[in-house]
Amino acid sequence: MVLDPPLASPIVGRLAVIGVGLIGSSILRAAKARGLAGTLVAYDGADAVRQRARALGLADLVADTPEQAVADADIVILCVPVGAMSAVAQEIAPHLKRGAIVSDVGSVKGAVLNALRAHLPEGVHIIPGHPVAGTEYSGPDAGFATLFKNRWSILTPPEGADPAAVARLSELWTAMGANVETMTPEHHDLVLAITSHVPHLIAYNIVGTAADLEKVTQSEVIKYSAGGFRDFTRIAASDPTMWRDVFLNNREAVIEVLGRFTEDLIALQRAIRWEQGEALFDLFTRTRAIRRSIIEIGQETAAPDFGRERD
Amino acid sequence: MVLDPPLASPIVGRLAVIGVGLIGSSILRAAKARGLAGTLVAYDGADAVRQRARALGLADLVADTPEQAVADADIVILCVPVGAMSAVAQEIAPHLKRGAIVSDVGSVKGAVLNALRAHLPEGVHIIPGHPVAGTEYSGPDAGFATLFKNRWSILTPPEGADPAAVARLSELWTAMGANVETMTPEHHDLVLAITSHVPHLIAYNIVGTAADLEKVTQSEVIKYSAGGFRDFTRIAASDPTMWRDVFLNNREAVIEVLGRFTEDLIALQRAIRWEQGEALFDLFTRTRAIRRSIIEIGQETAAPDFGRERD
Repeated sequence: MVLDPPLASPIVGRLAVIGVGLIGSSILRAAKARGLAGTLVAYDGADAVRQRARALGLADLVADTPEQAVADADIVILCVPVGAMSAVAQEIAPHLKRGAIVSDVGSVKGAVLNALRAHLPEGVHIIPGHPVAGTEYSGPDAGFATLFKNRWSILTPPEGADPAAVARLSELWTAMGANVETMTPEHHDLVLAITSHVPHLIAYNIVGTAADLEKVTQSEVIKYSAGGFRDFTRIAASDPTMWRDVFLNNREAVIEVLGRFTEDLIALQRAIRWEQGEALFDLFTRTRAIRRSIIEIGQETAAPDFGRERD
Repeated sequence: MVLDPPLASPIVGRLAVIGVGLIGSSILRAAKARGLAGTLVAYDGADAVRQRARALGLADLVADTPEQAVADADIVILCVPVGAMSAVAQEIAPHLKRGAIVSDVGSVKGAVLNALRAHLPEGVHIIPGHPVAGTEYSGPDAGFATLFKNRWSILTPPEGADPAAVARLSELWTAMGANVETMTPEHHDLVLAITSHVPHLIAYNIVGTAADLEKVTQSEVIKYSAGGFRDFTRIAASDPTMWRDVFLNNREAVIEVLGRFTEDLIALQRAIRWEQGEALFDLFTRTRAIRRSIIEIGQETAAPDFGRERD
């Protein structure tokens, strides 16, 4: 997969990325590859990550302070765990240029909007965002320029947001290969609860359950994982800090969807107990169609077993 | 990935495969590629599948009746859904050669052993088996010769089984690239409940829950599935008949493991409600190590996102 060739001229004067992990470093790589910013600035709170960002040549300037990072930036994108947004917003607030756009990439949008609103000054455009893309790896080395290609990036502009600012941010994501959609923060948080947060939680949970069984050893679980279990371990290998923050900051939607999941699971368990084969068969047939749809709209590979490399 | 070159001489005189789906057709392909049988015989209850097996050249003989399929066979492998084992055993019983080995590939072993014992005559070696391998696709076209390479194949010989017969069957699986392990049917059914059956059930369940939400449309679920949900749809696209039979025939172990899963999930939900971030962080850190182990022993790819083909 490749990105389109570089633009003739940048679409952002100065772009600042705060937090150089999987997502932050992918934005930097994509922006660099396509020449999207006049100046590309990166900052990370961890000294080792800043050094790594310099070594990888991820930005024109790897700033040493949040102040230096956002000074004169036209667009600032916060790529830190959701639980760190509030502290970062506080740090950068005094140094933001009037008219700057401040966005983020957090997997929760209601809590982030509140955190940004609480700390950022008037005259700054707050437009939270969330690219629905990622892998199970973390850190500045894990990113790649095509991460957002053909993925959705959701913007959740608050009521009264400046349409021109929304359009600029949207243009930036589109130039990185993403498809942009807008919705309210509340709706985003419910949609992601079912498409991402609860799936991650049940993956973490089944891996934990398996590790704790007394009658089956952990080495047996690992050995025979090809029967299905190993699929779950991929997302259960995702960044623990990021995911702790997601659950703490999207509590209500997660608990609401979890309630439905558990109710459905108990009904399935009952169908098994009472040998209601037809109910099982009907569900298992219905779920096949959903995967087909995901493949059809280009959000998944049709290759068997995800096209896993074998050997 | 490639299989080893063909053997100088076959290790089985006449090998019969009953049921030409994903697993059956993979056995036929592997046995043919490596020259494992003097004569390779296939049979399927469905006329269309028999025709397809002939068109694909999967066997030396695609039999028209179960009788013709097993006549004079040294090893017979039943590759039909677990719920069909009993009927197939009944059909082939009168035609089996004395001293023949009858095995299977079902994902449940206790129930299959009982079904075979109930119908097969004295003088036939019953050695149930289960290759822990597969994809989400079904049918004679879905199989491939390397499906079992580097995967585990579990044999569950009943007490008193002939060691020489176990060794022959084991040799056949090894020649198809698999690693062979033996255990009791009861232990197999518990191990597979956690490594395969319950993971499939919760995957089917979350896909069903997502489809039934009123506040999030099915098209939104499909659109934003890259956040994690789409991983689950892969195994929720597996063959409905096969999986219905698995749950109905491994009821007790599945319900036991499901009980643990639900208990753990409710504790996790409570941790979210009471904002116990440390408990979440600890679990999410522990689960990472398990994936690492699965990758280390060569049962999973280390490529990000399963190495999914992107575009």
